[in-house]
Amino acid sequence: MKKADVVVIGGSAAGIPAALSCRRNYPEKSVLLARREKQALIPCGIPYMFGTLKKPEEDLIPDSVLEQNGIELVIAEVTEIDRKQKTLSVTDGEPIGYDKLVLATGSLPATPPIPGIEKKNVFTIKKDIAYLADMLNVINNTRNLVIIGGGFIGVEFADECKKNRDISVAIVEMLPHCLQLTLDEEFCIEAEDILTKKGINLLANKRVESILGNEQVTGIRLADGQEIKADAVIIGIGAVPNVELAKKSGFRLATSTGAILVDRSMRTRTDKDVFACGDCAVKASFFSGEPSNIMLASIASAEARTAGANLFSVHQRYIGEIGVFSTVVGGRTFACAGLTEKKAKDEGYNVAIGKVSVPDRHPGSMPGMTLMKMKLVFSKDNGVILGGEISGGPSAGELINAVSACILHRMTATDISVFQMGTHPAATTSPIMYPLVNAAELAVMAIR
Amino acid sequence: MKKADVVVIGGSAAGIPAALSCRRNYPEKSVLLARREKQALIPCGIPYMFGTLKKPEEDLIPDSVLEQNGIELVIAEVTEIDRKQKTLSVTDGEPIGYDKLVLATGSLPATPPIPGIEKKNVFTIKKDIAYLADMLNVINNTRNLVIIGGGFIGVEFADECKKNRDISVAIVEMLPHCLQLTLDEEFCIEAEDILTKKGINLLANKRVESILGNEQVTGIRLADGQEIKADAVIIGIGAVPNVELAKKSGFRLATSTGAILVDRSMRTRTDKDVFACGDCAVKASFFSGEPSNIMLASIASAEARTAGANLFSVHQRYIGEIGVFSTVVGGRTFACAGLTEKKAKDEGYNVAIGKVSVPDRHPGSMPGMTLMKMKLVFSKDNGVILGGEISGGPSAGELINAVSACILHRMTATDISVFQMGTHPAATTSPIMYPLVNAAELAVMAIR
Repeated sequence: MKKADVVVIGGSAAGIPAALSCRRNYPEKSVLLARREKQALIPCGIPYMFGTLKKPEEDLIPDSVLEQNGIELVIAEVTEIDRKQKTLSVTDGEPIGYDKLVLATGSLPATPPIPGIEKKNVFTIKKDIAYLADMLNVINNTRNLVIIGGGFIGVEFADECKKNRDISVAIVEMLPHCLQLTLDEEFCIEAEDILTKKGINLLANKRVESILGNEQVTGIRLADGQEIKADAVIIGIGAVPNVELAKKSGFRLATSTGAILVDRSMRTRTDKDVFACGDCAVKASFFSGEPSNIMLASIASAEARTAGANLFSVHQRYIGEIGVFSTVVGGRTFACAGLTEKKAKDEGYNVAIGKVSVPDRHPGSMPGMTLMKMKLVFSKDNGVILGGEISGGPSAGELINAVSACILHRMTATDISVFQMGTHPAATTSPIMYPLVNAAELAVMAIR
Repeated sequence: MKKADVVVIGGSAAGIPAALSCRRNYPEKSVLLARREKQALIPCGIPYMFGTLKKPEEDLIPDSVLEQNGIELVIAEVTEIDRKQKTLSVTDGEPIGYDKLVLATGSLPATPPIPGIEKKNVFTIKKDIAYLADMLNVINNTRNLVIIGGGFIGVEFADECKKNRDISVAIVEMLPHCLQLTLDEEFCIEAEDILTKKGINLLANKRVESILGNEQVTGIRLADGQEIKADAVIIGIGAVPNVELAKKSGFRLATSTGAILVDRSMRTRTDKDVFACGDCAVKASFFSGEPSNIMLASIASAEARTAGANLFSVHQRYIGEIGVFSTVVGGRTFACAGLTEKKAKDEGYNVAIGKVSVPDRHPGSMPGMTLMKMKLVFSKDNGVILGGEISGGPSAGELINAVSACILHRMTATDISVFQMGTHPAATTSPIMYPLVNAAELAVMAIR
């Protein structure tokens, strides 16, 4: 029987950082990572295999990151966990013994109960390179593509599939706007305008009733009777925790999301020697402590690092999901940290808003200048920041992380209005116009 | 006599935000800004008037920012402050009465006592558009340019003057490396390599003994006897507080730097109705509270916002200078927040370092990918972050601001190792490789 002090099941955005953090925190312990897939994909990069990247293989996570850190890799599916004997059964190969176990089994694409979903050329987003390579071949020969779901996965796929292809692309979204679960309406509308200008057909407020065709998809029918031609359909309506193994092994699951129940150290509530992190583990909001269903690679990696650090001595308490996310639509970055205005209001906050629109270089005539919009959301009652949204150039992807740090530390509008930032003509807004401090200062006025 | 509730003297990176913050915090008060210059320059943009920008006028701060916010602009030099009568005398025009006064008179270029410094075509960096336009004309006809001072101003000028010109450029720096006061040696060397590859001649560890020529400069002589041909010389060795008016008006000045003494609310120690901010005001380190001589537009604006908010009711305490700065050398961004390793050691800290080098996109084959280097400096005794340095693409300019937020909140390496960041293939490093958390995690190991 193989044996390692620590076994991590899963090799993606949770499994790898869990293994790495364990190595760094407990260098004397042996770490083994077991994953089902021959090759691990960068999950966030999947949409970019369909346009920007030259070939699907460019989106692989190199195994060298494991080798270089002395982490043993076993490619096998774990089929059973014997928690008493602390051994794992695997599909092919000898069993594996562990002292501490990390479940990082991720998620599976959600599949809506739409009649016809089983037809050929109807795809979900599986983290499987062979499946995605096949899907790419189909898309390359598709004239009419329908994407079901206008969340960021759907939008990224639409954007990428439209690139360098003579293809008609439609997005069908049940809610009034694309990206509505992650951005406030004004940012959604900005993103939708970009998509529309690229010739993508947006069908919001629409429900898919059925997928048409015989063996192979030929179109979709909406609840309002409208039919849309389609040689291929991509379903991007979210994901569900992959917990089959955990369920079978007697781990308690959350009634809300079905995810593995863990405490704030990322230890399962079922077995003190087993931790869980990433999409398969239960999430709680940083703000309310309530269950949250955000799934992001960045959250997975933060949870995984917490798990890895806590394996042999619990000393890190995870503070809950802030939810920090970026996407790119037609070359423009959209980012959000924490609560949108709508979410904050839905949660009962009395909010104060600060909003600015500024050039992201100074002077504005510096090359590469993009207009940056920022919105900050504060609690009117205590002035504490609840969230921020940005649209702008690529640097919005890092600026949102400064916002995340402000949220983490429960800074007030007054605190942020004198935030000490660095600025440079070729890299940022001017110090006078700096969006974070100006939006905060405007909110200070609104709070009074 | 003119009168305003608040008068701000100075119209640059301190004066404008002081006036704006006052308007926002005290909307009922009238605000007047008096500045000497007909047109205000964006100070950080000055080097870019010499290469990237099409004409000097592109680097102006539009007065509309004042008009739109109901701030009255008076173009006049204030020659005297009558603190008893609370009135200002100005060069031309009627006196101005105030209730609260903000001194934002900035700095003047430091001039070293080098014989020959008065010769024609020897320039300092004055924030004066007519002067700079003349200087640009001279540089456009210069074949041999010598820059005295290899700090970020000198380096930016070298980089810009070399652009699209048939010109030989040399930098003379007294210290062993360019940028040594703001970056650790390994980052200085990286920047120097870029400058050298662009054909800029670096003369480090060299002192200028005299400037040669008759009426007009023809070259410089170094202390080691070497002579270098020069049709023009630019002196960029720093700046000194512009405190002539304050001195004349009886304000107490710091013995260390000559700057106007203020408390942590930015109120002068001399007069409770007068505040000072920006380059003309005394600075204290965030870390030690000791006097600091950092002058940055971003610091000026943070101090100015503090002053503006405190004018009629002191409720904001400035926490001292973290010192966050970015520069761009040959298209590569270099940024620093807080203490470098060297500075931290010089101040007596026992330090732990975390260092990573990662692609700033994921996968690394995403277009626009730049290798990003990050170094974090922690106190080994309590794990608290002291500083961070980055070199990379333009997004380093915002990532350093996330580092600043971590410093502001005295986060430990352990805290930062589970920082919640957003990531996206086209805008950031991958969550697994994210430099901030990985550098912190490596430092956790070094701290143990």
